[in-house]
Amino acid sequence: MSEKRTDRPKARLPRGFRDRGAAEIVAERACLDAIRRVFESWGFDALETPAFEYTDALGKFLPDLDRPNEGVFSLRDDDGEWLSLRYDLTAPLARYVAENFQNLPKPFRRYQVGCVWRNEKPGPGRYREFTQFDADTVGSASPAADAELLLMASDALEALGLTRDEFALKFNSRKLLDGVLESCGLALDDSREAQLRRGVVLRAIDKLDRLGIGGVRALLGEGRKDDSGDFTKGAGLGRTEIDRLESFISGTQRGEHRLDGMQALVEGSAAGVQGYAELVAIAELTKTHGRIQFDPAVVRGLDYYTGAVFEAQLTFPVKNEEGEPVVMGSVAGGGRYDNLVARFTGERVPATGISIGVSRLLNALRERKAVSLPPLVVVLALDKNERAASFALAAELRGAGIRAETYVGDAGMKAQFRYADRRDAAIAVIEGADERVRGEVTIKDLAAGAELAKSVESRAAWVKDRPAQISVPRSALVSKIKEMLGSR
Amino acid sequence: MSEKRTDRPKARLPRGFRDRGAAEIVAERACLDAIRRVFESWGFDALETPAFEYTDALGKFLPDLDRPNEGVFSLRDDDGEWLSLRYDLTAPLARYVAENFQNLPKPFRRYQVGCVWRNEKPGPGRYREFTQFDADTVGSASPAADAELLLMASDALEALGLTRDEFALKFNSRKLLDGVLESCGLALDDSREAQLRRGVVLRAIDKLDRLGIGGVRALLGEGRKDDSGDFTKGAGLGRTEIDRLESFISGTQRGEHRLDGMQALVEGSAAGVQGYAELVAIAELTKTHGRIQFDPAVVRGLDYYTGAVFEAQLTFPVKNEEGEPVVMGSVAGGGRYDNLVARFTGERVPATGISIGVSRLLNALRERKAVSLPPLVVVLALDKNERAASFALAAELRGAGIRAETYVGDAGMKAQFRYADRRDAAIAVIEGADERVRGEVTIKDLAAGAELAKSVESRAAWVKDRPAQISVPRSALVSKIKEMLGSR
Repeated sequence: MSEKRTDRPKARLPRGFRDRGAAEIVAERACLDAIRRVFESWGFDALETPAFEYTDALGKFLPDLDRPNEGVFSLRDDDGEWLSLRYDLTAPLARYVAENFQNLPKPFRRYQVGCVWRNEKPGPGRYREFTQFDADTVGSASPAADAELLLMASDALEALGLTRDEFALKFNSRKLLDGVLESCGLALDDSREAQLRRGVVLRAIDKLDRLGIGGVRALLGEGRKDDSGDFTKGAGLGRTEIDRLESFISGTQRGEHRLDGMQALVEGSAAGVQGYAELVAIAELTKTHGRIQFDPAVVRGLDYYTGAVFEAQLTFPVKNEEGEPVVMGSVAGGGRYDNLVARFTGERVPATGISIGVSRLLNALRERKAVSLPPLVVVLALDKNERAASFALAAELRGAGIRAETYVGDAGMKAQFRYADRRDAAIAVIEGADERVRGEVTIKDLAAGAELAKSVESRAAWVKDRPAQISVPRSALVSKIKEMLGSR
Repeated sequence: MSEKRTDRPKARLPRGFRDRGAAEIVAERACLDAIRRVFESWGFDALETPAFEYTDALGKFLPDLDRPNEGVFSLRDDDGEWLSLRYDLTAPLARYVAENFQNLPKPFRRYQVGCVWRNEKPGPGRYREFTQFDADTVGSASPAADAELLLMASDALEALGLTRDEFALKFNSRKLLDGVLESCGLALDDSREAQLRRGVVLRAIDKLDRLGIGGVRALLGEGRKDDSGDFTKGAGLGRTEIDRLESFISGTQRGEHRLDGMQALVEGSAAGVQGYAELVAIAELTKTHGRIQFDPAVVRGLDYYTGAVFEAQLTFPVKNEEGEPVVMGSVAGGGRYDNLVARFTGERVPATGISIGVSRLLNALRERKAVSLPPLVVVLALDKNERAASFALAAELRGAGIRAETYVGDAGMKAQFRYADRRDAAIAVIEGADERVRGEVTIKDLAAGAELAKSVESRAAWVKDRPAQISVPRSALVSKIKEMLGSR
C-alpha cells in the first residue's frame, strides 16, 4: 500500500490474454448451456479435472512442437515436482481414467468444459487461454462410440441455432491414412525418421483445402515456396506415390464422400483394411443424417490419434468484427486415441473424443443470434438522504422479475443520467422530494429520451422539459414499467 | 507413445488438487446459476479476467505471508516477465479498472465467478484451486455501495434456499477498528513496526469466536499457549488497553449488535469517527432486513481493506461427509479497498466488494438440497448389428425430452446391465431380435428390478424371469416411459 510513485506497477493485461465483458460472457454462457444440455441428454456426465497436472502426466502431444515443454505453461512445485497447466482436456482425462479405472462404468462417457492454456506466440485472435468443450468415451473400441460422438456433436451444433446445411461433420481414420501411406511404401514403424516423414505427408494432405491439389503435390514431392517466399521442404515422394495419394484425396476435391474406392487403395495394409472396416461401420450408423461425411483429407494435428478422426466445418462465410470475411478453421475436432491411458497403465484402453471450439463458434454466430440480458431499470438517487427509499423501489422491481439497480455513487443528476446511459438502461426511475410528497414516481423511457437526456443540464431543466417521461402513483410503478418494457 | 515400461508416468492428481464428478458439478452449477441470477437482477455485469496476471500487478495481499511469492503460483514468461495465477478476483479487478477507467460507467459494478489458485500447503478440505464468486463496486465512496453488497449477498443466500434466520451478515469497519486502536495508544502510521503490531491486535480480535474473551485477552497481552502447547506471542498491551478493547467487542460477546456505544470508544480518532459515521449509514440502509448486523469483532484477514468489512456466517450446525459436526468459517466476506486501484494510477478510487465462498456453501447445503439430473434411460445393444436401431430408440426418447443413451461398448448382456446399474439408470430398454420381429420393445424398471437384475446371468435367465419389466409396442415406447418416470 505504501509503494512509492516510481514503484508503481503498470496496469496491463499479460501478453496473449484478454478480458471479456458482459456481452461476450452472456453469449458464451448461452452457448455452453446449449451444448451441455445436449451432452447431458445423451447421458454424458460432467467431470472436472484441475487446471494443473504433473508435467510427466500431460505428455507432449501438441502438434509441430519439438522442444520439451514448448506450448505448455510449467512451474516447479515447492516439493521439486514439475506442474503444467493443461493444454487440452484429453490428456487430463487419460490421467483420470488411469487413476480411477476400477470404479468407472465401462464405457466411461464424460464431458468437460473449461479453460486450457497454450504457451504459444500470441497473435490476432490467437490467445493463450481459451475454452474447450469436450465429450469422450473411454473403454469402447466400437465404431458405435465414434458415430455417437458425431451424431451428438451435430445435435449440439443444431442446438446452437445452426441448420444441418450450415455445417458438415467429416470423418476419416488415421488407420486408413496409414494404410495409404504403407501402400505408397512409407514405413509405419515408430522410428523417429518414419514418424517425421509420415508427419510431413499427413500435414501436406491436411492442407488440401487451403493449398489445393497443386500445393499438396508440391509438399508431397520436393517442397513448396509460399506467397511470402518461405520454402517448406517436401516429403520427397516419387511421381507414382504422389499420384496414388492424389487419387486417395480426389473425392474431397470433387466434393464426393464415398468410401467405395478406398478399399483398393489400402489393399495389403492390415492397418488400412481395419481402418476401412471401421469407417464403413461409422458411415452405416450416420448415413441417414445427411451431413456426416467421410472425407479422406481430414487428418487432425494432434499426435495421439490412432483411428477415427473427426472435424466439423461451417459451410457459410463468416465475417470478423470489421465485417471482413475470415478463413474459418474447424469448429470441432477429435478422434480416437487408444494409447493415451496405456501411457500410464501399460494396458491399452480404447478411447475416442470430440472437442468443440467454443470461441470460433461464438465468432461465427455473433451476427445472427443476439443473446442478451433482460432490459435494465436504474433508480436514480437524487436525494442522498433517501437512499433507503431508492433501495426499496429497486427491490420492488426485482421482486417483480425486473432487472433493476439503484445508483450507489455520490454524483449529481447529470452524472446519474450519464451513468444510466452508459449502462444501456431502458428506463430510469426518479423519486425526488416533491414526487415523494405527492406519492408519485417519475418514469423516464431512456431509449425514447436518449437524445434529449444528453441536453439535461440541471434539475431545473429537467423539471421544465421532462422529455419522454411520465409520473405515476407510487403504487402503479411496477405495472407501468412492465407495460413500458412489454411494448418494446 | 513409444515410451518404455520404465518411463511410464504415474497417474496421480497433483498435490492439493482434486477431480470433481457429476453430482458435485451439477450442485455447484445450480448454486452458481442462482447467485448469478441474483447479481444480474441487481444490475451487476459479468466480467472475466484471465487466469494470469503480471506478478507485479497482483501485489502481495494474502494474509500471514511474509516471503515474496509465497501463496502464489508464478512462472517466468519467455520474454522474461513474471506471470502469476490469480489468488483472488479482486486484484485482477483493480488492474482491469486501472487499465480501462475512462471507458467504464461510474460506479462500475461487476461480478466475476471463477477459479483462483493458492500455492499453499494443502490439507484436509483445503485445496490449492477453488471457486470464488465476487461482486464489486468501484468508484463509489458511499456507504450505499457497501449496504447494497450486503443486501444483495443476502438475496443470494436466500436464492440458495437459506432462510434469513439461517445466516447472519455482519459488518464492521477497519476505520472503527483503527480508531479503537488509536484510542489505545497504538500508532496508525505505515511503519513496518506499527503495521505488524496492529496486525497482531486485529488477529487477536478476529479470534473471539474461536477463543472466547479469555483467549483474546491473552493474545492482546503477553501471549497465549494453545492446546498443542504452541505459544503465540501477544501484542503486549497493558491492562487498561485490554479492558478498553474488551468493552469494544463485548457486544459481540453478548450477541448484541449496537453501534451506540462505539462513538465514545473512538473519540479523538479521526479515522474512528469517520468509520463510525459510515457504519451508521450502512446500518440505516439495512436496518429493516433483520439479519444484517454490526459486529465489532469482524476483522477479515486480507491486508488491503481500508473501511467497511463484511462477513456472512451460517447459524446452523454443519456436518461433514462422515456426519461429524464441522467448524464452519464464514461463507462470504469482503470489504472496502480504496487503495488498490491507486497502486497503479496513483489516484485513489474507492472500491468495495464481497466474495461468496461457493465450496463452503455447497458443503453446508449438501444434505438439504438435492439438485440432480433428470432420470436416465439406457438403451441396451444386444444385437451389435442393429446398433442403428438402438441409436434411433435413444434419439426418439431424447426428442421427447428424456435423458437417454445407447450402450456403445462391445460387452454382452450381463455387462450391459451392470453398466446401466453403474450409471444409476432408471430404466433400461431392450429391443432384441425377437422383440423386433414382434414390433415390440422391452422396458425394465431398474429401480424396481435392481436386486433381481444382479442375479441375471444369461439371456436365457432373463427371458425366463423378466423381473420388473414389460413389453410394449414399439410405437408406445415414449408414452410408456414417460408414464413410468412420471410415477416415480
